[in-house]
Amino acid sequence: MSVFVGVDGGGTRTRAVVIDAEGRELARAEDEGAVVTAHRPDDAVEAVRRAVGAALEKSGGRRQAEVLWAGLAGAGTAAPRAAVTRALRGLDLAERLIVGTDVEAAFYSAFAGGPGLLVIVGTGSIVWARNEDGAERRVGGWGRTLGDEGSGYWIGLEGLRRLTRSADGRAEPTTMEGPLLQACGIHAVDEAVGWVETATKSQIASLAPHVVACADEGDDAATSVVAEAVEHLEVMVRTAGEVGGDVVLWGGLVAPGGPLRGRVSEAVGSLGLRVVAEEVDPPLGAARLARAARGG
Amino acid sequence: MSVFVGVDGGGTRTRAVVIDAEGRELARAEDEGAVVTAHRPDDAVEAVRRAVGAALEKSGGRRQAEVLWAGLAGAGTAAPRAAVTRALRGLDLAERLIVGTDVEAAFYSAFAGGPGLLVIVGTGSIVWARNEDGAERRVGGWGRTLGDEGSGYWIGLEGLRRLTRSADGRAEPTTMEGPLLQACGIHAVDEAVGWVETATKSQIASLAPHVVACADEGDDAATSVVAEAVEHLEVMVRTAGEVGGDVVLWGGLVAPGGPLRGRVSEAVGSLGLRVVAEEVDPPLGAARLARAARGG
Repeated sequence: MSVFVGVDGGGTRTRAVVIDAEGRELARAEDEGAVVTAHRPDDAVEAVRRAVGAALEKSGGRRQAEVLWAGLAGAGTAAPRAAVTRALRGLDLAERLIVGTDVEAAFYSAFAGGPGLLVIVGTGSIVWARNEDGAERRVGGWGRTLGDEGSGYWIGLEGLRRLTRSADGRAEPTTMEGPLLQACGIHAVDEAVGWVETATKSQIASLAPHVVACADEGDDAATSVVAEAVEHLEVMVRTAGEVGGDVVLWGGLVAPGGPLRGRVSEAVGSLGLRVVAEEVDPPLGAARLARAARGG
Repeated sequence: MSVFVGVDGGGTRTRAVVIDAEGRELARAEDEGAVVTAHRPDDAVEAVRRAVGAALEKSGGRRQAEVLWAGLAGAGTAAPRAAVTRALRGLDLAERLIVGTDVEAAFYSAFAGGPGLLVIVGTGSIVWARNEDGAERRVGGWGRTLGDEGSGYWIGLEGLRRLTRSADGRAEPTTMEGPLLQACGIHAVDEAVGWVETATKSQIASLAPHVVACADEGDDAATSVVAEAVEHLEVMVRTAGEVGGDVVLWGGLVAPGGPLRGRVSEAVGSLGLRVVAEEVDPPLGAARLARAARGG
């Protein structure tokens, strides 16, 4: 019996799902995360090897799938994608290998090949849209230094920046100071300069809920950071939304229960688009992409 | 005969100047740059040792000064300053050692202990002010991740960010694309994501003159980046300028002939402050601080 494997690999973890020819889930496994780079594809390849190997083993002692669809963070540009594809091909995990991005896998999970608009706001941010004709459009997702506007990383950093401006007299005091310093484990704004140099992207993003909480309580600086974040996301959705379709909000900040879900839903609604509450399961989406590619 | 040594140490280079009791310059030497951190003070200490050693040697084979005033980037906060002071003390370069920042040394060079307002806009940005009573005030200078608003680093990064927004449809095309991609040595905006992760702070700052040139030629995106930069700097000067005094503009972007000098001078003038064209020689300023501290 042929099986199909999907992989969702990002900075936090790598997950693999095995499904059968009828699309039924047979097994699932998880390993460490790794973002693909052109210079160092090995970490990501190794994580994929372990996750896929474990999932195939669980699905009945298999060693190979018919198709492996690997959705990997960082594989959106040509050079890293080529490097990781070459290395994965050498592992013989499947008769056929397709490398795409984690975002494409998430999108397929949300819209099953149909049109739609996926807004991901977690540590990073990106909007991915697909129209009735299959034309796709990406807005944002340029990484933490150049892009990821409105993301948890962006909001956390803007929160800290407001503290520095308040500390040197450029801005009024803000109620963010207590919660943010405590979350960073430091005692003074001065220490934030050193903290931020060694903090991970996720650690900085973990400050975002505190910023949103201060905005909810009426703090001016926090309110302006959150308003700017939502404005960035609204521009991204409007740009991608020219292709139309329903909108799924996904990622820690905007998934159901997320601290920015209400504000971003409202912004999306103001653009005349409709938010639908689809489940998003990227490794399952990738497995379905693998199955859809059989015999192709 | 007693001599006094001043040091100006930053990311690019470490310079030492030896003066005599009458304030006459006897010798000058230069070494590699190093920014002081609490975890690794050694690089900066080694650079100071070599630069001071060479300058003392040149000044007539001396081994020790009466006072050494070391103005070091990164020594503005307590922990790094304590670490580097301890390590420098062990070298016995002077009977008396004072550690301050590169900005304090530059300020003393510009205003000779009097009141004034020093605006530094190079790779980073900071405003340092001192009033008639000697009270000092720092605005900005929180480092590249949290601060340095309006600096070369900030302008370069904003220029690249505009390219990404133009590339994914959020903004109109900009004439910055050609010059910035060429300056980065890359062929497509996609590659900027990888470029920026490995670029140095100075490499990113070196993009700023291209952004200003595009603004001068009327490009909308470049014009808005430059206007935002000047606005940030104006807020910094206004905040520090509450103490009053003349203004010296220093650093690659605003020193005489610098691409932002005209715009920033105008912004400073609009605040009712006067720009004066003092020479700024930070290691000499540090040496004069050393001399001023004799017998103290």
